[in-house]
Amino acid sequence: MQTTTPLPETDRLADFAASLADTTDAMAMTYFRKPLDIEAKADDSPVTQADRAIEAEMRTHISKAFPTHGILGEEHEDARLDAERIWVIDPIDGTKSFLSGMPSFGTLIACLSGGVPDVGVISIPPTGERWTGQSGAPSRFNGVPCRTSGRQNLGEAILYTTSPDSFDAAGLAHFEALSKKVAMRRFGGDCYAYGLLASGHVDLLFEMNLHPYDYMALVPVIEGAGGVITDWDGQPLTLASEGKVIAAASAELHAQALAVLGHGKPQG
Amino acid sequence: MQTTTPLPETDRLADFAASLADTTDAMAMTYFRKPLDIEAKADDSPVTQADRAIEAEMRTHISKAFPTHGILGEEHEDARLDAERIWVIDPIDGTKSFLSGMPSFGTLIACLSGGVPDVGVISIPPTGERWTGQSGAPSRFNGVPCRTSGRQNLGEAILYTTSPDSFDAAGLAHFEALSKKVAMRRFGGDCYAYGLLASGHVDLLFEMNLHPYDYMALVPVIEGAGGVITDWDGQPLTLASEGKVIAAASAELHAQALAVLGHGKPQG
Repeated sequence: MQTTTPLPETDRLADFAASLADTTDAMAMTYFRKPLDIEAKADDSPVTQADRAIEAEMRTHISKAFPTHGILGEEHEDARLDAERIWVIDPIDGTKSFLSGMPSFGTLIACLSGGVPDVGVISIPPTGERWTGQSGAPSRFNGVPCRTSGRQNLGEAILYTTSPDSFDAAGLAHFEALSKKVAMRRFGGDCYAYGLLASGHVDLLFEMNLHPYDYMALVPVIEGAGGVITDWDGQPLTLASEGKVIAAASAELHAQALAVLGHGKPQG
Repeated sequence: MQTTTPLPETDRLADFAASLADTTDAMAMTYFRKPLDIEAKADDSPVTQADRAIEAEMRTHISKAFPTHGILGEEHEDARLDAERIWVIDPIDGTKSFLSGMPSFGTLIACLSGGVPDVGVISIPPTGERWTGQSGAPSRFNGVPCRTSGRQNLGEAILYTTSPDSFDAAGLAHFEALSKKVAMRRFGGDCYAYGLLASGHVDLLFEMNLHPYDYMALVPVIEGAGGVITDWDGQPLTLASEGKVIAAASAELHAQALAVLGHGKPQG
């Protein structure tokens, strides 16, 4: 784009994030549904050759374009986390989906300013679907502005969580309490379910044991689509959050869900 | 195809099933991710306008082409179940996925001869993926012959079930026992996971409370790809089966899984 004034910084970073996702989408598909070596990690999530190779490629591109920015990812060492700008990336969110040929895995890219994510990308390589968000602009699904359902009544809500196996006993009790209040719950989905929330098809997400690279990219997408995403106490998600994440299609729904948990105060 | 001898019957029925899936795929996509009226059914599974409309269309096509054949579906009255040939159809398998915008729902079409399914189609409208099977021929994924992983070791297997909510207490205990023996388990998938089994990405499926329209179409696809699919006692699935389904990438894996359940005898 030829302009006489430079693009605002978040636009420039969002453009870069999208071009990075173009690169990684293509890479991911060269590995998808192909034989892989599966290793066990300490936290039991499968790590693949693909994860490592794609993250290395992402780091190379980021470091070349923004040598002073920090990088936090799943597979490699953190770099420059004292920088004002930090990229938080997950090459393959939904490794179990990826390993079993399920096309709901995705690549997550966030850029943080002073710890706050103001650019986010959820890219789904096998389906060619992509949700993008940036502060001060509507989120987009494949380039078209998208909105949450705006649903305000917990009793009508569609609730997702990736797996009951992610919860400890207390977390599972919260999840069961929430499940009793909603219209329907479904398992599976990983980052894809957050995209569906941003597009108005899912109303509520409830998860625990997520890492910053699992949730940071979701924040600008959900917020720019009119949703709310916080920790279980209703506090903003930061790099130091415990990984307990709740996302809702509206502030009202979010407050109702927090009230069920006994955390936070209903808003409004 | 111009030949001087008529096509074998299963070829003719398989061709018809594929053309039926072409019609229903297009119909399903006109409803997918659109506003729908959700009703509660006695068994609590959501029923949509789409389900009903697509099944009605399928019944019209089947009755016109094969007026003497029986039809068993999810949404409408059974017809001519005393016929030698019976079509067993599910317009939208994975209604929860469908309702929440998740592209893993599918249309299931089976044709039975004397109660035995010898033609099966698993068609996934949003991704354009289709698995087809017929007795005496290799199963195909988008027209190309496909095979299960052939995995023989339970400890290396990837296990799927759609939701833990489908099990009663005894079933859940079996599922947990099986889970302890495998490499990885994941939730979600509906009929899509059976397709992934036929293509070698998933190794083991374990479910209960399925209906004939949920499992009949899977049988020719799984068997024609080298897999085994039975009830939890290792018996062939029939219209009278209890809806407890186990599918495995190989006879060895199937036998190992049955042994964990305490049902059936290990083969070989």
